[in-house]
Amino acid sequence: MFRERLAQDAARIQDHFDLVLGALDDLDATRAMAYATEGGKRLRGFLVLESARLHSIGPEQAIWPATGIEALHAYSLVHDDMPCMDDDDLRRGRPTVHVKWDEGTAVLAGDALQAIAFELCTHPEVGPVAVRAELALTLAQASGARGMVLGQALDIAAETTEMPLTLDEITRLQAGKTGALIEWSACAGARMAQADRAPLRQYAQALGLAFQIADDILDVEGDAEKAGKRLQKDAEAGKATFVSLLGLEAAKTRATDLVDQACAALDGYGAKAETLKDAARFVIARDS
Amino acid sequence: MFRERLAQDAARIQDHFDLVLGALDDLDATRAMAYATEGGKRLRGFLVLESARLHSIGPEQAIWPATGIEALHAYSLVHDDMPCMDDDDLRRGRPTVHVKWDEGTAVLAGDALQAIAFELCTHPEVGPVAVRAELALTLAQASGARGMVLGQALDIAAETTEMPLTLDEITRLQAGKTGALIEWSACAGARMAQADRAPLRQYAQALGLAFQIADDILDVEGDAEKAGKRLQKDAEAGKATFVSLLGLEAAKTRATDLVDQACAALDGYGAKAETLKDAARFVIARDS
Repeated sequence: MFRERLAQDAARIQDHFDLVLGALDDLDATRAMAYATEGGKRLRGFLVLESARLHSIGPEQAIWPATGIEALHAYSLVHDDMPCMDDDDLRRGRPTVHVKWDEGTAVLAGDALQAIAFELCTHPEVGPVAVRAELALTLAQASGARGMVLGQALDIAAETTEMPLTLDEITRLQAGKTGALIEWSACAGARMAQADRAPLRQYAQALGLAFQIADDILDVEGDAEKAGKRLQKDAEAGKATFVSLLGLEAAKTRATDLVDQACAALDGYGAKAETLKDAARFVIARDS
Repeated sequence: MFRERLAQDAARIQDHFDLVLGALDDLDATRAMAYATEGGKRLRGFLVLESARLHSIGPEQAIWPATGIEALHAYSLVHDDMPCMDDDDLRRGRPTVHVKWDEGTAVLAGDALQAIAFELCTHPEVGPVAVRAELALTLAQASGARGMVLGQALDIAAETTEMPLTLDEITRLQAGKTGALIEWSACAGARMAQADRAPLRQYAQALGLAFQIADDILDVEGDAEKAGKRLQKDAEAGKATFVSLLGLEAAKTRATDLVDQACAALDGYGAKAETLKDAARFVIARDS
């Protein structure tokens, strides 16, 4: 049931990408944009669509920011995979953009995906101008030098220091690197409805941390083929992770506790919130 | 008089950058963001401030999008200068970001500068939510795969084909690469006032083309020291430019005609438009 809903939302996002990106000139950079957005779980877009549904905002409106956040996520992966960053050849089981094309195309495709993320969030069909302005402002904050990029910059800074990060430092780093976009996605529905964001924010903060701990566990225990990317990277690089700091078993317990917290935060919504609660449970059970 | 106003607006933009970027964590990427925004003519930010003034919108509101467009321009330069793009070591007379730091820092600083551009354009102090949503939407369109990035992608595609570009093709390429942001900047004031944009659009389209022709002339006739960057790049690369296609004298005549057209488009505003007309004259008279 949950996986069907996730797949249904992912297909809806793919259709919207086809519509939006299909209208562009046919060039390496635009082909790379489409390529980079294909596949993946589309968890962030799913969170936008489901948090919107929770507030009776339909997919005809929510599909715009849902596709927008996936465009933004795709840009971050394209740039992150470049040789001057994480230097990865494989993503979602396929060659990364700079391998399939070249680095210049990766820079441009990522840049244009970031721009289109803001275009999608401010599209007239999203809803009232107040919502469009707020979605763009908060997406800029979540993705920039106080959000996602801050997390990446802290990650790079950590690589060049002798001292491994503490649990507090890793938590702050991950709150930026993956947490900020997950929080934005889960709060998008409440923003679109101009409703109270507090329950979804609590949900998202617990979910984001659980997601990252699960990623660290996957990096140690996962199957590279199923994951579609290189694993054991952190251990090889001698990086501190939730697993290296807490130990594998305590990390699993912590992730489970966080999922319980995430679910509890949505109790006030009643049965309508079941799909989002399932998403939290899925996040620590996934194999990719 | 005009140069004083330009310098005054540039200083105002610098103060705003200091305020906004000074609040970020102190890391390589954030230091590189500040570095990349220093210097330069700040013509785009000036166009925002002056087109706003033309519509009685004061700098306390217009400084946000003026600084935003300069952040966006700075991101494009940082990424453009990278080895996988134009591979330039010098910008505004100083080492480029990837030379002073490294390529990873250049990618991240550029990415965060793009995000902050949207944050500045949607800041509550810009004005009504309708204006903030519209500024973000149009900036995304002007800077993405149908605007600036399209121009860059066409430029790269042209390098790999045997046939030199025609005048029509170069005009389309430049309309994206530099024209789209110049048009957005000049129209920003009318957008903020929710007024008719047609005169400023006409002004900006002529100005943008004149700007690019002047750049091509500068590339041939200019002084690299004054320009603060490498020159004669296009001729060395055997690239078609307005100068190679029209000849030097005809290019100069065309630029002068375009400046006359730009000025004529603003006649309806009376004496208030003098500064913007001076800006058009300046664009073809500058030495950097």
